[in-house]
Amino acid sequence: MKTIDLNCDMGESFGTYVLGYDEQAMPYVTSINVACGFHASDPDNMAKTLKLARQNGTAVGAHPGFPDLVGFGRRALAMTPAEVKHAVMYQIGSLDAFCRAEGIKMQHVKAHGALYNMAEKDLSFGLAIAEGIKAVNPDLYMLCLANSLMVTAAQQTGLPFVAEAFADRAYTEEGTLVPRKIAGSVIHDVQEVVARVVRMVKAGTVISLSGKEVPIDAQTICVHGDTPGAVEMVKAIRVALEREGVQLKAFGR
Amino acid sequence: MKTIDLNCDMGESFGTYVLGYDEQAMPYVTSINVACGFHASDPDNMAKTLKLARQNGTAVGAHPGFPDLVGFGRRALAMTPAEVKHAVMYQIGSLDAFCRAEGIKMQHVKAHGALYNMAEKDLSFGLAIAEGIKAVNPDLYMLCLANSLMVTAAQQTGLPFVAEAFADRAYTEEGTLVPRKIAGSVIHDVQEVVARVVRMVKAGTVISLSGKEVPIDAQTICVHGDTPGAVEMVKAIRVALEREGVQLKAFGR
Amino acid sequence: MKTIDLNCDMGESFGTYVLGYDEQAMPYVTSINVACGFHASDPDNMAKTLKLARQNGTAVGAHPGFPDLVGFGRRALAMTPAEVKHAVMYQIGSLDAFCRAEGIKMQHVKAHGALYNMAEKDLSFGLAIAEGIKAVNPDLYMLCLANSLMVTAAQQTGLPFVAEAFADRAYTEEGTLVPRKIAGSVIHDVQEVVARVVRMVKAGTVISLSGKEVPIDAQTICVHGDTPGAVEMVKAIRVALEREGVQLKAFGR
Amino acid sequence: MKTIDLNCDMGESFGTYVLGYDEQAMPYVTSINVACGFHASDPDNMAKTLKLARQNGTAVGAHPGFPDLVGFGRRALAMTPAEVKHAVMYQIGSLDAFCRAEGIKMQHVKAHGALYNMAEKDLSFGLAIAEGIKAVNPDLYMLCLANSLMVTAAQQTGLPFVAEAFADRAYTEEGTLVPRKIAGSVIHDVQEVVARVVRMVKAGTVISLSGKEVPIDAQTICVHGDTPGAVEMVKAIRVALEREGVQLKAFGR
Repeated sequence: MKTIDLNCDMGESFGTYVLGYDEQAMPYVTSINVACGFHASDPDNMAKTLKLARQNGTAVGAHPGFPDLVGFGRRALAMTPAEVKHAVMYQIGSLDAFCRAEGIKMQHVKAHGALYNMAEKDLSFGLAIAEGIKAVNPDLYMLCLANSLMVTAAQQTGLPFVAEAFADRAYTEEGTLVPRKIAGSVIHDVQEVVARVVRMVKAGTVISLSGKEVPIDAQTICVHGDTPGAVEMVKAIRVALEREGVQLKAFGR
Repeated sequence: MKTIDLNCDMGESFGTYVLGYDEQAMPYVTSINVACGFHASDPDNMAKTLKLARQNGTAVGAHPGFPDLVGFGRRALAMTPAEVKHAVMYQIGSLDAFCRAEGIKMQHVKAHGALYNMAEKDLSFGLAIAEGIKAVNPDLYMLCLANSLMVTAAQQTGLPFVAEAFADRAYTEEGTLVPRKIAGSVIHDVQEVVARVVRMVKAGTVISLSGKEVPIDAQTICVHGDTPGAVEMVKAIRVALEREGVQLKAFGR
Repeated sequence: MKTIDLNCDMGESFGTYVLGYDEQAMPYVTSINVACGFHASDPDNMAKTLKLARQNGTAVGAHPGFPDLVGFGRRALAMTPAEVKHAVMYQIGSLDAFCRAEGIKMQHVKAHGALYNMAEKDLSFGLAIAEGIKAVNPDLYMLCLANSLMVTAAQQTGLPFVAEAFADRAYTEEGTLVPRKIAGSVIHDVQEVVARVVRMVKAGTVISLSGKEVPIDAQTICVHGDTPGAVEMVKAIRVALEREGVQLKAFGR
Repeated sequence: MKTIDLNCDMGESFGTYVLGYDEQAMPYVTSINVACGFHASDPDNMAKTLKLARQNGTAVGAHPGFPDLVGFGRRALAMTPAEVKHAVMYQIGSLDAFCRAEGIKMQHVKAHGALYNMAEKDLSFGLAIAEGIKAVNPDLYMLCLANSLMVTAAQQTGLPFVAEAFADRAYTEEGTLVPRKIAGSVIHDVQEVVARVVRMVKAGTVISLSGKEVPIDAQTICVHGDTPGAVEMVKAIRVALEREGVQLKAFGR
């Protein structure tokens, strides 16, 4: 029987500002990536998010980002590898406090936004993230973009890792993401997204933007919960996978 | 043989800004209270401070404060008990990441600045801190001002705790601190401070501002390392205590 | 012919986080209080808000708050009067840059949240705000809660000022606001709110929570635009006032 | 008679953290670049710095930087041109409030740290800065690195500008700065620095790292005040220039 994990960014509200549909999306995913106060969230929202994770039995990972609240961690910041390592450690630790309070064992770490994008292309960033994870807890999985340098970083550091594919993103013939600025890079049609996810999980392939069937080896699929439409899409993905006999399960279990 | 702990705030630099004489003072104290990024410090300075603690064999505690870098956590902020609890949890967790990286088991938590001052007078603040500590790790000691409501908070929560006395502060006849705005509240003469500490440790008493000998039951003495003069004072205290046959030892060991 | 001003907090979004219905509410109000980056907003949102104000011909005031983004400026912070004065100056100046870029002459300053609440009860806070305003531009109006110490502060400082009443808040027999924690302190029924505003403007009175008609001398009425329902209420207030022959006009014009 | 301006970064303290020797260096310089709270400083330190400028009769400019306190604005941040423009406007406005309070007319704007470095190489950054300045006040001088794209940006925008040379930095044969990572890029010998400045001002040339005399057309020389040694160097530069019959005068006067 095939199994797959669905991971989703959660806990991105900040103070009085609300972002995302965490309560609605949480029941359909198996792992969440929780913002840790650098690009989004704060201690109160982290406590609330972890409580929700415990109630839903969802697996939890830290989602460290650049220290840039106003830019939501989406702007590249020229931190040194040592600064990245320490920022990742800090954020993992801060989230772990709320995990412990809810009796949850942290499962993984996934870099956020510009930090993720830099780590996928620049090995020194990926290594800095991996070393930050390892320094805190070498049993944590590093969540890596499939077919990217993040995988190399996890392997070189000796960390357990899983590769992720994106449910709604177009792929090149090399199995890498089509950049967002290119037309067709994001797929909005629910049925098309669902069909792609089923193919990724059952056949281990994706149809590239150019129309070619390309192998993709992913243990987790990234989905979204930040709009009502996104929640509907996650639900449709889950229903379709279960209908196809795929078991949804957090990768660390 | 009498034993005592000397605790000192450390790791209060921030980014490019340097504060305190951590390297000079560290060898003379037995426990340090490490800033966690809310009122001072940042991930890089926390990493540096914990490395120094490991090299010196110093016991480590978290020093959570209000989220007020520009005010150095010294201004009262009307946070709710839930907000205080979560802010304390977050800061303990963040520091714990650096403890783990250095193989250090965190010993205690001491509130900083205005948070400390509010907890000493308002039980709801003390309880919020104690509950934050307990939620993360019920084995952590809460460092409490002797003869204050902080002790009550630790006891009600069922946390291990130690009481602290201040080396250079004047005391009332009730064994509480003379407020800083009153003349004579801070003692600057090194020999006088040394004599007071020796009396606190060996006789368990302090001479109040009014001249009365008052009992004070403290397991740790708070000293400072933020000026060259302060470092000299810490050194003098340590030398005097050792000459008197007192063993200096972190309370958690 | 009676004239009145309707003032509304605007520009409270922050980074990627959206708050309020500025575009929908702006056409119905005559003056806006614009967040300046301390409790909400950022340079990009300020630029956007001022552009909207110019397009609508709305009068603009600065809305300085405590430096507490995560708490939205709603938590009392024990700043000294000098710190308050300088924080107010800084925020007025920052907003003025965007006023100049749009060819708008700033009209007024209204303190936000906990800073407003403290200034209404503690003259030293009101004076600090007034002195901050005067230091930057003594022609700016200080927007004061009617019948409060804020009026005294503006008068003692020699600043022009206007008094404000709240459209949806209950009043005591002394003409002061009924605290939010008391039942009935906030009025939600649109028709009742509209009727109260018409009475405030035409008769210069308000019916207190205890049922007594109490004089209230206000040159501006505070309304809200942070929910779709709030926008409907502002619209209803404006329509009713115009039907009653009241002219809506910014107080500084 | 030759005239020259000496400009120096000032007001870089933050909260309780002290940086620089502003009081000691201020009497020897003619223009200061004042941090505005994004990479350093805060409202209280800005008030203090402007008071010092008034007492010394020093000309004042804004020193806007990236919103990165912990990195002191020295790390490149991928802001969009619109974000840069608005951040520059905000910071100019904030400082102008303190200028007005001291009766000082702001003279210029000089970008700080990584923002300066990006603007010298990427015209879109320079244009964003120039447009931000112009939107607030088209009479403000833009302080530009001599022989760089910043000059082009000021010219294209139609802003008044001055070019600056660095007292203690080595130059290439093209009249550009030798990057800091290259040996010999920073000159520490006081007499050598003094001689170079005198040559820059009197002959309009500089000896490149390779030993060639290269033309440099600068209306202001950048000096430092962040260490006791730096203050001594500024003093020596001023004394030497006056001995050579050069008049020290802010460029905007």
